[in-house]
Amino acid sequence: MNLLIKNGNIVTPSEVYRGDILVKNGKIQGIGYFREEKDIEVIDAQGKYVIPGAVDAHTHMDLLVGGHRAVDDFYTGTVAAACGGTTTIIDHIAFGPEGCTLQSEIDTYHQLAQGKAVIDYGFHGVIQHINQEVLKELEKMVLKEGIMSFKGYLTYDYKLEDDEILQFIKKMKEIGGIPTFHAENDRMIAYLREKYVSENKTEPIYHAKSRPSLCEAEAVSRLLYIASLAGDAPVYIVHLSTKEGLEAIKFAKEKGQKNIFTETCPQYLTLTEELYYKENHEGLKYIMSPPLRTQEHCEILWKGLADGEIQVVATDHCPFHFSVEKQHGLKDFSKCPAGAPGVEERVRVLFSEGVMKKRISIERFVEVLASNPAKIFGIFPQKGALFPGSDGDIVILDPKKEEVLTKKNMKSAVDYTAYEGMKVKGKIDYVISKGKIIVKENSFLGQKGDGKFLKRNPHKSFALEL
Amino acid sequence: MNLLIKNGNIVTPSEVYRGDILVKNGKIQGIGYFREEKDIEVIDAQGKYVIPGAVDAHTHMDLLVGGHRAVDDFYTGTVAAACGGTTTIIDHIAFGPEGCTLQSEIDTYHQLAQGKAVIDYGFHGVIQHINQEVLKELEKMVLKEGIMSFKGYLTYDYKLEDDEILQFIKKMKEIGGIPTFHAENDRMIAYLREKYVSENKTEPIYHAKSRPSLCEAEAVSRLLYIASLAGDAPVYIVHLSTKEGLEAIKFAKEKGQKNIFTETCPQYLTLTEELYYKENHEGLKYIMSPPLRTQEHCEILWKGLADGEIQVVATDHCPFHFSVEKQHGLKDFSKCPAGAPGVEERVRVLFSEGVMKKRISIERFVEVLASNPAKIFGIFPQKGALFPGSDGDIVILDPKKEEVLTKKNMKSAVDYTAYEGMKVKGKIDYVISKGKIIVKENSFLGQKGDGKFLKRNPHKSFALEL
Amino acid sequence: MNLLIKNGNIVTPSEVYRGDILVKNGKIQGIGYFREEKDIEVIDAQGKYVIPGAVDAHTHMDLLVGGHRAVDDFYTGTVAAACGGTTTIIDHIAFGPEGCTLQSEIDTYHQLAQGKAVIDYGFHGVIQHINQEVLKELEKMVLKEGIMSFKGYLTYDYKLEDDEILQFIKKMKEIGGIPTFHAENDRMIAYLREKYVSENKTEPIYHAKSRPSLCEAEAVSRLLYIASLAGDAPVYIVHLSTKEGLEAIKFAKEKGQKNIFTETCPQYLTLTEELYYKENHEGLKYIMSPPLRTQEHCEILWKGLADGEIQVVATDHCPFHFSVEKQHGLKDFSKCPAGAPGVEERVRVLFSEGVMKKRISIERFVEVLASNPAKIFGIFPQKGALFPGSDGDIVILDPKKEEVLTKKNMKSAVDYTAYEGMKVKGKIDYVISKGKIIVKENSFLGQKGDGKFLKRNPHKSFALEL
Amino acid sequence: MNLLIKNGNIVTPSEVYRGDILVKNGKIQGIGYFREEKDIEVIDAQGKYVIPGAVDAHTHMDLLVGGHRAVDDFYTGTVAAACGGTTTIIDHIAFGPEGCTLQSEIDTYHQLAQGKAVIDYGFHGVIQHINQEVLKELEKMVLKEGIMSFKGYLTYDYKLEDDEILQFIKKMKEIGGIPTFHAENDRMIAYLREKYVSENKTEPIYHAKSRPSLCEAEAVSRLLYIASLAGDAPVYIVHLSTKEGLEAIKFAKEKGQKNIFTETCPQYLTLTEELYYKENHEGLKYIMSPPLRTQEHCEILWKGLADGEIQVVATDHCPFHFSVEKQHGLKDFSKCPAGAPGVEERVRVLFSEGVMKKRISIERFVEVLASNPAKIFGIFPQKGALFPGSDGDIVILDPKKEEVLTKKNMKSAVDYTAYEGMKVKGKIDYVISKGKIIVKENSFLGQKGDGKFLKRNPHKSFALEL
Repeated sequence: MNLLIKNGNIVTPSEVYRGDILVKNGKIQGIGYFREEKDIEVIDAQGKYVIPGAVDAHTHMDLLVGGHRAVDDFYTGTVAAACGGTTTIIDHIAFGPEGCTLQSEIDTYHQLAQGKAVIDYGFHGVIQHINQEVLKELEKMVLKEGIMSFKGYLTYDYKLEDDEILQFIKKMKEIGGIPTFHAENDRMIAYLREKYVSENKTEPIYHAKSRPSLCEAEAVSRLLYIASLAGDAPVYIVHLSTKEGLEAIKFAKEKGQKNIFTETCPQYLTLTEELYYKENHEGLKYIMSPPLRTQEHCEILWKGLADGEIQVVATDHCPFHFSVEKQHGLKDFSKCPAGAPGVEERVRVLFSEGVMKKRISIERFVEVLASNPAKIFGIFPQKGALFPGSDGDIVILDPKKEEVLTKKNMKSAVDYTAYEGMKVKGKIDYVISKGKIIVKENSFLGQKGDGKFLKRNPHKSFALEL
Repeated sequence: MNLLIKNGNIVTPSEVYRGDILVKNGKIQGIGYFREEKDIEVIDAQGKYVIPGAVDAHTHMDLLVGGHRAVDDFYTGTVAAACGGTTTIIDHIAFGPEGCTLQSEIDTYHQLAQGKAVIDYGFHGVIQHINQEVLKELEKMVLKEGIMSFKGYLTYDYKLEDDEILQFIKKMKEIGGIPTFHAENDRMIAYLREKYVSENKTEPIYHAKSRPSLCEAEAVSRLLYIASLAGDAPVYIVHLSTKEGLEAIKFAKEKGQKNIFTETCPQYLTLTEELYYKENHEGLKYIMSPPLRTQEHCEILWKGLADGEIQVVATDHCPFHFSVEKQHGLKDFSKCPAGAPGVEERVRVLFSEGVMKKRISIERFVEVLASNPAKIFGIFPQKGALFPGSDGDIVILDPKKEEVLTKKNMKSAVDYTAYEGMKVKGKIDYVISKGKIIVKENSFLGQKGDGKFLKRNPHKSFALEL
Repeated sequence: MNLLIKNGNIVTPSEVYRGDILVKNGKIQGIGYFREEKDIEVIDAQGKYVIPGAVDAHTHMDLLVGGHRAVDDFYTGTVAAACGGTTTIIDHIAFGPEGCTLQSEIDTYHQLAQGKAVIDYGFHGVIQHINQEVLKELEKMVLKEGIMSFKGYLTYDYKLEDDEILQFIKKMKEIGGIPTFHAENDRMIAYLREKYVSENKTEPIYHAKSRPSLCEAEAVSRLLYIASLAGDAPVYIVHLSTKEGLEAIKFAKEKGQKNIFTETCPQYLTLTEELYYKENHEGLKYIMSPPLRTQEHCEILWKGLADGEIQVVATDHCPFHFSVEKQHGLKDFSKCPAGAPGVEERVRVLFSEGVMKKRISIERFVEVLASNPAKIFGIFPQKGALFPGSDGDIVILDPKKEEVLTKKNMKSAVDYTAYEGMKVKGKIDYVISKGKIIVKENSFLGQKGDGKFLKRNPHKSFALEL
Repeated sequence: MNLLIKNGNIVTPSEVYRGDILVKNGKIQGIGYFREEKDIEVIDAQGKYVIPGAVDAHTHMDLLVGGHRAVDDFYTGTVAAACGGTTTIIDHIAFGPEGCTLQSEIDTYHQLAQGKAVIDYGFHGVIQHINQEVLKELEKMVLKEGIMSFKGYLTYDYKLEDDEILQFIKKMKEIGGIPTFHAENDRMIAYLREKYVSENKTEPIYHAKSRPSLCEAEAVSRLLYIASLAGDAPVYIVHLSTKEGLEAIKFAKEKGQKNIFTETCPQYLTLTEELYYKENHEGLKYIMSPPLRTQEHCEILWKGLADGEIQVVATDHCPFHFSVEKQHGLKDFSKCPAGAPGVEERVRVLFSEGVMKKRISIERFVEVLASNPAKIFGIFPQKGALFPGSDGDIVILDPKKEEVLTKKNMKSAVDYTAYEGMKVKGKIDYVISKGKIIVKENSFLGQKGDGKFLKRNPHKSFALEL
């Protein structure tokens, strides 16, 4: 079935313009003025924004970590994503057993996702250690298997040492892959956590205090020095949460360093650490790493988003039930699994808090939610664009409607939303995936298993300027 | 007659993508995949760039200045523009008699242009002094007459004093107009010029030495302080030529000042002051204000163009015959009329030196040559865009061809080109104006008088971020 | 008579150390450990700071301006200075009749000062216009007459144009003189003043509003561009009052410009524009140019003073009776003579608000009040230092005592102090001029006419780094 | 015996002035004009600089490292120092056995130095690991034993982890001690060294290539983040060698971080990596860590020294015979002991290359060689100053003489100088230690064992601004 979206305000990263979009056979056929024909379903988008389906480059579906499993699997998680205006996810996979192959980690995830996902998906691989075999296998994964991005951690059990990072990013630069990094200083956080716990300071706020902003900034800074040493090797920093981290990035750029890509998340733009003090232990809902910061950080991240210093907004969606898993942190924050939901809220929160509050333009909104992640992670313009030939992944958003975000209207399997009660301006009328309407006014109309694995393309000669 | 441009690489300020463009009744009908129909002329653009017709926001056709008249009138000048890939000009008009009305200045230009221009055109007005009548008339011009931009000079006979600038830009801010400025320090230049002439230093190089870069930077800096005092009133700086001027702009922005727009020209990006020493008095060809600078300035302007600090490349096209008018400077540079041709060369020079030498991306090329000037000066998206409904102003450019710029292949009435002998990569295959092919492989096919006056729209609430 | 100051904490611009100071025949004989001898008066300075007598490089004694005469002549004014810890003043002289010689202006001041001053004094000349005769006479004044510094105004009746400034500072650079500048934008201030007055906005606060901080910053910026064009010619900016002005100075320095010297005054460090709203028209007391600013500016000026960006604190002492001259502003701020007293308060205010509040170190205090002005203005180390051979100009200051500044304890002829009621930590115990105790616990013991004219030395090869 | 130094140009960190210095009983008695008396030896210093004896805050006498022992013991090393104008050293001691106490390390050095040194000396302790006992003992060492500074390494066998650094500097801040750091990234250097060696790239230049400037900058940056996290805990960075390292320091300061102290060495200011290519394996002479860099780095370090960003110039004197120990690197740079002599050359090289070439002023020369290290390391004004009561440690330097630096005129036990053949302007006429002439025209006149251990004082409330 074909679709004609009439008279919408079509948004690109540089402009907004009026026009119709014609979708045939799951692909975009044209943009312009088209006659209504039989066999074409017509949607009137007058007065509404027509944008590319959003891409969430940072989710953790079905993640098993520290004995807990994230409660959204690839079905519930992608339904939530779809209802939130996201038509593609790129999932950060879990660590495998020590010494396992990169392929085996990915295989596990193919099994988790296949037949379940309702929208298209890709996987970021993960690096647990570096040696010649890993570097060799990396080539295969990036060039053959469609896994063109891998993550390295600067903290946690499989943290990479500086020389490992160096070898990892040099190899990725050589083959056109994108290395992504969780950047926090491991040893200082461990020291602070143990210190607080030993002093019986175990309330949720000490989760934040044990991961101060300078720990993020130090790790970001170090990573960028290593990237510079590797000849401005591309690096992508996930979930940046601090002013100081952003300053380190700007400092590197002012010195002339190129190929630095930065992601932040809606929670770091809109939520603050006061939430850790919420009554009835609700602060546990917000235990995530990095933690929430203060309003000053939010404002500076918004500014960085607006002026181009930050290129992507993703979610780090990694939900645990407040009533089950999160309760492990009741007496000690360090026992609480870190992570929170977000895949269903991102587009609406960013539109309302960003676009409607004039912190970012509608063009920038599309850029950071869709075009940029698609470009960086090798799926553009199949995803993230409304070009002739692009997948028919389209969201129609009405800026004049309003709603209140609340768990009871959400599809994610988790038992809370971090944004409960937030009034948002703008409402998602339609979500279209590969030419099919999968969401209409918050009703999910799609099919389990319709989402397919995306083999993502490495960069040819690296020349990505966003 | 209708046009179908097949399979080109269509360029926007943010992306390049493949597709067909269908033009009907002089307007763009759609972008996508279209069948060839009868009554539609088909152009195969496979492997070529398809871009919006370029907008030159700074020309001086038929300008009478200091007893000399620029040798291109609105016919020869717009033919030259068209052959150079430019489908719209916005002409900076001449001063009128002391005390004349703004309307009378514009009327003179309507007479000069009407029935002659082969492409659409607008006029920038000019301010010679400020008083209550002028401020009142400015409202009429901007809001009613389609003249939404006016120029002020910080040097020359009708230079504005600081308090006049302040009143001018406050009024323009209020009504959504754009004030543009020639920024050079008048008194220091006058002093240096007299000093050099009195010392018998009268060769062309002393034109440059009498207008040092700091004189531009000081004037830019002062202008920006005044704009800041006026509440970040929008200002547009024409023909920026120096590193120091750009530093002053960056400094203002770092302090938080908004609404600063900057134009440079191909000559300041690619030509240097060594040319003033050319044999046979050919240095006179390059006498223009501001003068050519050194390579260091060129490189910094390129960088400013690439990173967004400079938003527009225009030409300041103001040609005088080397064999006639320029000869007045033979014994004294200060007697030589200042100005040079450029409207025919701009697009090719910028493509070859900018895009092909990887100083700017193809997207940025389109942005600074077409989209940005159209947005700033109130004619977007009629001009400067390839949207459904935009005028069918399109250039097809073949990046694989090469040519040598030479006067004998040029249409401008003037007797030289400043780029004689320059090898450029890229060639303009077609220039289309309002759906008609007006240039095909350097043959002009258009009609005198087909160009119409563009009433340009003031900005509603000023929110232009480029 | 000779003096031995025992056991004081002797302060230099880089250190504080314990020791005795022996003064013989009006000069410092030595610093170290000395035995008490007969014929030597011994002062016990245990626990007290022993500093060089302060130098006030900006006073206006007996100034005739706009029909009003500043109420301190060289007797009352220097008595006030002495009681305030200042042992040298360099007075900024008044304009002479249009077209007068530089010498005649100075001659007038020799007559005003001779036989009256109680401490040594010098004169800054003033430039009213530039031509070849003036430039010629400047040489004589700087090289022969001991007037090595001249002032130029960027506002007021005799404001210099940019090309005049250029010629002035080039000449001064050549001969080792120091040009000083009052930097405010003339035309914008005139426009704003007329605008406010025409709108009947005539209260004292409109004095401040008509001279916004950007008007100072613009003039500073312009001056620095001109100085840069003159080959980093030295310039000295008097009474800097704004954040934006300081930013302009820093910007120039970051670009590599040298030889920029900056003065601020205690009133710009400690008083704010709220004072213009004082009841009973007391706001008139604070009408001075530039005007008082906000607390943010004060804090930034303190920081600039601490980190070396500002080198001198002087007073711009120019008092008019509140009960007489200032009353002319009762109905219109623009009729009120601009100026305020300060010569008697400076040292104490700066010690209390600066040193005791830890905004600047005691070493910096000595540097900006004494050593730096002496170095810049050609009287070091005769003044501004405690070296063997320096004049015995010494102040002994007790940091443990406190007092309240109040008009009734002051010597200046004027009828108010701008700091009425301010509690200050630190008290001046002794002021010694050329080896004689002229102030002891606020009693003036000196002699009219003991102050002599200081022929000040031009800089040899300019290499002053402060 | 007493000394009277007549008519010299006495230098302080802020000024130069004429005067006599009287020294009695090993201490400075006074500065001024003194009569010659019997029992006083008179030195005519007319036309010469009289400066405080230089303090070398970074030497390694008798250091046992990696199986090699530095060839200067505390006798030959301090004789060399004295002949080079240095009257105090603070020696960085060697690591002890794993797990040893801080006291035992120091005891070893007391034995090495006592009875041998010819000038006064102190010791910097060294931290090998951090635990509660070490932190406890640190208090004793700093507060009781006169060891107020300790070093931590970010590379080598006993490198400290980030959390150890954090605990170390927090403790030092608490007790007023100064932690010093060798800042290079351990893991990346190890990786690069192994890589080069495995590729048979074993010439001396690969020593430099395996320790790129970014490895220093990263470690500096990381250290400063940790110090910031510790509440701007004071840190002192030894032997800074790179532009990038200095940029990291400036970046931290611009963000407001305080209490950062930086040392560089003459070799990083004046020698460059071309020396590694010297014939006859002489490149081995320059193997030191960090390695020599390029001229660009030298220039930037000179600038940093001049403008106050770098506060100290020390030597890292650690000599090995070229003919013996250095030969271990013949086939593999990684086998060559790192270190070079410098204690004898520092003052002369810095005077000639710094002061005489106008890169730094004579005042700054005294500040970075004597006053600043004495202030930072708790021996001011006993050392590093010419105050009444200061030790009579004085150097008389004749700026008009010249000499050629050459091993055959040097006293160090080592068999080469890194500055062989360098012509220097300026010559040391006298070196006076505690009132005794110990060097006269390059003859050593002092006594073994006259040098005494200096118990250095911790900072009370930290308020050191240099």
